[in-house]
Amino acid sequence: MTASGFDVLCIGNAIVDVIARVEDDFVSRHGLVKGSMNLIDEVRAEQLYGDMGQAIEVSGGSAGNTAAGVASLGGRAAYFGKVKADQLGSIFRHDMRAQGVAFDTEPATNGPATARSFILVTPDSERTMNTYLGACVNFTVADVDRKVVEAAQVTYMEGYLWDRPEAKEAFKLAAKIARAADRQTSITLSDSFCVERHRDSFLELIRNDIDIVFANETEIKSLYQTEDFGAAVKAVAADCPIAVVTRSEKGCAVVKGSDVLEIPAHPVNKVVDVTGAGDLFASGFLYGFTNGRPVYDSARLGSMAAAEVISHIGARPEVRLRTHAETLGLL
Amino acid sequence: MTASGFDVLCIGNAIVDVIARVEDDFVSRHGLVKGSMNLIDEVRAEQLYGDMGQAIEVSGGSAGNTAAGVASLGGRAAYFGKVKADQLGSIFRHDMRAQGVAFDTEPATNGPATARSFILVTPDSERTMNTYLGACVNFTVADVDRKVVEAAQVTYMEGYLWDRPEAKEAFKLAAKIARAADRQTSITLSDSFCVERHRDSFLELIRNDIDIVFANETEIKSLYQTEDFGAAVKAVAADCPIAVVTRSEKGCAVVKGSDVLEIPAHPVNKVVDVTGAGDLFASGFLYGFTNGRPVYDSARLGSMAAAEVISHIGARPEVRLRTHAETLGLL
Repeated sequence: MTASGFDVLCIGNAIVDVIARVEDDFVSRHGLVKGSMNLIDEVRAEQLYGDMGQAIEVSGGSAGNTAAGVASLGGRAAYFGKVKADQLGSIFRHDMRAQGVAFDTEPATNGPATARSFILVTPDSERTMNTYLGACVNFTVADVDRKVVEAAQVTYMEGYLWDRPEAKEAFKLAAKIARAADRQTSITLSDSFCVERHRDSFLELIRNDIDIVFANETEIKSLYQTEDFGAAVKAVAADCPIAVVTRSEKGCAVVKGSDVLEIPAHPVNKVVDVTGAGDLFASGFLYGFTNGRPVYDSARLGSMAAAEVISHIGARPEVRLRTHAETLGLL
Repeated sequence: MTASGFDVLCIGNAIVDVIARVEDDFVSRHGLVKGSMNLIDEVRAEQLYGDMGQAIEVSGGSAGNTAAGVASLGGRAAYFGKVKADQLGSIFRHDMRAQGVAFDTEPATNGPATARSFILVTPDSERTMNTYLGACVNFTVADVDRKVVEAAQVTYMEGYLWDRPEAKEAFKLAAKIARAADRQTSITLSDSFCVERHRDSFLELIRNDIDIVFANETEIKSLYQTEDFGAAVKAVAADCPIAVVTRSEKGCAVVKGSDVLEIPAHPVNKVVDVTGAGDLFASGFLYGFTNGRPVYDSARLGSMAAAEVISHIGARPEVRLRTHAETLGLL
């Protein structure tokens, strides 16, 4: 940690993605809902993997992808997340540090293996995720390094953490420390099923402890149980200082009180795999936001980062985003 | 093993590729020769990995890639190779079986970890490989399953096996079994440094125990210590019934006695990563050869398979090669 600290601290489930292309019938045959994230146990993980074709392994995890994106843009990023001291854990750690992210959460020496998400990419480039949380269940308040939280301008956390009571407590502790240090807090709602599972406590958190909410259109509608996008936007504006709502090819809306700023999507030649789109959008926005850029410019950086990550397999940037942004005249 | 057996049995070092894009100066800074394959120890592996950027993990290994290619074309492929019973070993095993390759070599339960090759892909799409052999050192004659060798039309082995005396013995045993069962044998010279290391014993083997040699232009010239391609072709024709010499974008030459058949390269839109080009060429040729196709058609299948694999990162086919070949009218 440098004296000047971090732009963004990301907290989330530390996961290695196991990605394979599948046909649509594979998804239906396994009783999965396309585009969803499912939590699976070890037995189910073995079954699914046994049935999957040849795969590639890439470090992932929603907030992990965001931290990698912030670092790739030249930002100072830190990360908290739990791997086990095993081969996949070493790979996850390497990839984080290689990207320039400060990542010092102690790996678990016993208990379940490093988490894996079996990601099925269908011909329409949609992804269906099946996550075995493994070592993530050992992430607790003890892993919240107070000094790092206090040193980060924004502490950003994934909603998925809410699925484990211990991780939820860690999340709440981090938010409390950040607030007490006059820092800002941010959450991504992660996915609409996650919102369904935790609607009331998400709302309570957002109303009291969050400065910036990230969500996509489905998630924000689910949070406020409305089919009316305008109504959802109005509701979130009342609950939180800033909300950033992504709408795929329709771009995104940044909501600040009664102001709603619409930003078009960044053009993409060919969508290959949508995994990580939301995570990388958040990285671009947060990089801009913590580096004194106006929200419009920050959202454009988010759009650019999302466009890069959906143009290839895997949820981490393949090029250095800073160079990419400079070439495009965005930085 | 079915009663009808296998088209091709591939024997080689079972390796997981760890692939990262690097700039040219990374290769020179580490004292590496671009395009080469270097054997490294565990300490060097740790140093190199620590210095590499974010990577992806994909199953590889020269003969492993060939087995995957044969299976992807619809052929009956088997594989012998040694992993450890660890996470990367499970990944390698899964990817082989998921592709339809029969792979039953017992994993090592102790000793070094599953082998990794740190593959550095430079902006010119060339790759420099740094291989930590790990568990491959435990591959011995005990791993040669006689029934599988006897059931395979062609037993194909990578020259890299020659780097370990125990693996070399296993290779020789497999060749002996195959010959005694009236089956055919094949070798790839692997790389020119490998030829330098083992020239005399490669020549002895080819003259006595091999039916089909695969090599690229550099390797065949190195084998016969000549700068004259024609002279090398003439020499190999005298030493072996069939030689298949690949020449990158110049296509390939199939040499049978005094006949030299030249086959143009398959067009490639954009070369992304040349890793696996030779391995996949061999898979296409061997699939055709063992399924009653003329050598010209077999070489075209090889060219097509090589073209697919160099159009993306990683040395295993990303599409089902059989479908691809059918679409192109090659099968």
